[in-house]
Amino acid sequence: MIFVSIRNDADDIGYGEAAAAMDALAAMQPGYRGVDSAREAGGMGITVSYWADDSAAIAWRHHPEHTAIREHGRARWYDSYSVIVARVERGYDWVRA
Amino acid sequence: MIFVSIRNDADDIGYGEAAAAMDALAAMQPGYRGVDSAREAGGMGITVSYWADDSAAIAWRHHPEHTAIREHGRARWYDSYSVIVARVERGYDWVRA
Repeated sequence: MIFVSIRNDADDIGYGEAAAAMDALAAMQPGYRGVDSAREAGGMGITVSYWADDSAAIAWRHHPEHTAIREHGRARWYDSYSVIVARVERGYDWVRA
Repeated sequence: MIFVSIRNDADDIGYGEAAAAMDALAAMQPGYRGVDSAREAGGMGITVSYWADDSAAIAWRHHPEHTAIREHGRARWYDSYSVIVARVERGYDWVRA
């Protein structure tokens, strides 16, 4: 699940704490397989969360605390965002020797 | 195609120009559907490029200039990276009213 978001710069109150709390909560959900996240100072952020299957991703989307924080994000933190659900087909890793 | 990378901090020479050149080159390829990218000051970056189909994504991966810059990135800019190829199943956008 790919989450692309543009932060506003008007109100930083609570954002960092909420983001960390959501990362910790996601990691406790069934089917969680990890997360990658990067946010630029300019407001652009991408979070990719990995799930065992579609039902695990949907369950996380509907989690009550996640739903509540999403509403808060719409009200305060974000100017816009996109959610893209995609099925992993293949991948590889490279690490400096 | 999701590209998650950790930059090193030893050598910034040419990285920004190369990244911009690759974005511009990608946008000229057949089947290109867009890109989202965010990189933190700390070195973590995520780039998501969107393609019409798998063959378009594979063609971009094998593009000679892209291949050359990837070799350069391995030699100089990156400590590690992951590539994840995923098929988009659904998505939605939200924009502040």
